[in-house]
Amino acid sequence: MNPAEWFSEISDELWPGQCFSLKVKSVLHEERSKYQDIKIVQSESHGVVLILDGIIQCTERDEFAYQEQISFLPLCCHPNPQKVLIVGGGDGGVAREVAKHPSVTEVHQVEIDERVVELSKQYLPFMACGFDSPKLRLTIGDGFEYMKQHEGVFDVIITDSSDPIGPAESLFRESYFELAKRALRPNGVICSQGGSFWLDPAHVRSTLDYCRKHFPRVAYGLAAVPSYPTGQIGFFIASLNPETKFAEPCRTFDEKEIDRLGLRYYTTDVHRAAFTLPRFAAKALYE
Amino acid sequence: MNPAEWFSEISDELWPGQCFSLKVKSVLHEERSKYQDIKIVQSESHGVVLILDGIIQCTERDEFAYQEQISFLPLCCHPNPQKVLIVGGGDGGVAREVAKHPSVTEVHQVEIDERVVELSKQYLPFMACGFDSPKLRLTIGDGFEYMKQHEGVFDVIITDSSDPIGPAESLFRESYFELAKRALRPNGVICSQGGSFWLDPAHVRSTLDYCRKHFPRVAYGLAAVPSYPTGQIGFFIASLNPETKFAEPCRTFDEKEIDRLGLRYYTTDVHRAAFTLPRFAAKALYE
Repeated sequence: MNPAEWFSEISDELWPGQCFSLKVKSVLHEERSKYQDIKIVQSESHGVVLILDGIIQCTERDEFAYQEQISFLPLCCHPNPQKVLIVGGGDGGVAREVAKHPSVTEVHQVEIDERVVELSKQYLPFMACGFDSPKLRLTIGDGFEYMKQHEGVFDVIITDSSDPIGPAESLFRESYFELAKRALRPNGVICSQGGSFWLDPAHVRSTLDYCRKHFPRVAYGLAAVPSYPTGQIGFFIASLNPETKFAEPCRTFDEKEIDRLGLRYYTTDVHRAAFTLPRFAAKALYE
Repeated sequence: MNPAEWFSEISDELWPGQCFSLKVKSVLHEERSKYQDIKIVQSESHGVVLILDGIIQCTERDEFAYQEQISFLPLCCHPNPQKVLIVGGGDGGVAREVAKHPSVTEVHQVEIDERVVELSKQYLPFMACGFDSPKLRLTIGDGFEYMKQHEGVFDVIITDSSDPIGPAESLFRESYFELAKRALRPNGVICSQGGSFWLDPAHVRSTLDYCRKHFPRVAYGLAAVPSYPTGQIGFFIASLNPETKFAEPCRTFDEKEIDRLGLRYYTTDVHRAAFTLPRFAAKALYE
């Protein structure tokens, strides 16, 4: 293995002792933005890959799994989601999915790093097409400030962030859940990237516990995403409606509708299964 | 990344362009047996790791996910599994799980490479403890020959093989399913390692199609195993009973029983969820 030809995702803090690598055909772009290192490569097996601060954010080959689950899990846990806020998600993938949901009328997105947006439009058009939706209003700015200025506005808030070390750290703290709660309408639902319980169940548990202080109903849902460490990622989902049953979606789609919406991962059955955790994880997170 | 300190799992045939690596503390053993290269390492993050022909077979950290699913999915799809055959599984992990099932009285295992058994007893006692069960009868030999000599004997046959290139290749062909069918009692169930549809859905589909020629009911179930390529692995499960509903187990366990059996991954809900595939995979495998 010639290291020059491979991108290796090493993090001694997040996943010590293990590493996923992708063979690189060519480096399409590299820069240091105001917030982070941005690298975009053409891989041999996974299409175009977006890498922030040395961590793979998405690959053309399997990004749909993540984008569909982080969007449709919370949207379908709400009986009538109309106004949606996306925090982060600068590649456009979550906007692409949220805009598909039939009841959604307005998608507000606030992304801190405009260079991620610009470069995604240039190199990841299959995701950045999300910015073309007439439902979308994009703001470049700080998600915390944006939520402070929008109290009681949104039905669903989706936080598509990087991992809890670096610019996204604050999104895994209690103050985030407090602010998100205030920005919601009654019976609102939130969903955030939640790491992997295979790596650090104690960290997942402590974030869930923050969330529990502000929301009567809280759960952890899953997506299989092969290019992420452990091949799985979870989402914190919380609802202000104490009657919410996360594993029984309010809105269901039959297979024809799933295909018409262009969904490749999410189905109503996938939704139901996403909240079933292996025994050790259920114990670590819920007991 | 100093390549000398890492074990990198490269396969241009099975997963070109991608690679998972584990940091190695020490190499515990290395040899060429009659059938394959055997390497056992102490990793920094995943405990002891068994590697055959350069492919990770199991790590101490997450092997339970694989062993429990490949064992309990088929066992719980049978109303009363008593006699079980394990083909392969030389590390002892599947035997360890199968012997836990309350109705199982006899576990017959046939492994081709006795060096894997011997080295697992020495270096992977947490799995090789499976060989200590009084229910177990271990034979060193060829699984095909063994099945030919045992017609109509087993309630469940579990094939815990390496990937479909190398010594296990024949286990992914039609002749395997034909032989397995003959070795079963009426209403018997089989389960085999089935690769990952994220890598090669066409190969998974063609093996499922072989299986369909001999069994009236066939499905593909999942386990999340972070140290395998794509972080997921699937299993071909087939039943001679046309009434079998794989996602609705005949035998259920409550949480107390799960804990008493020492299961860390499998639960009755995990069983039900294991057969739900992402839309693209369901299309590739079933439509």
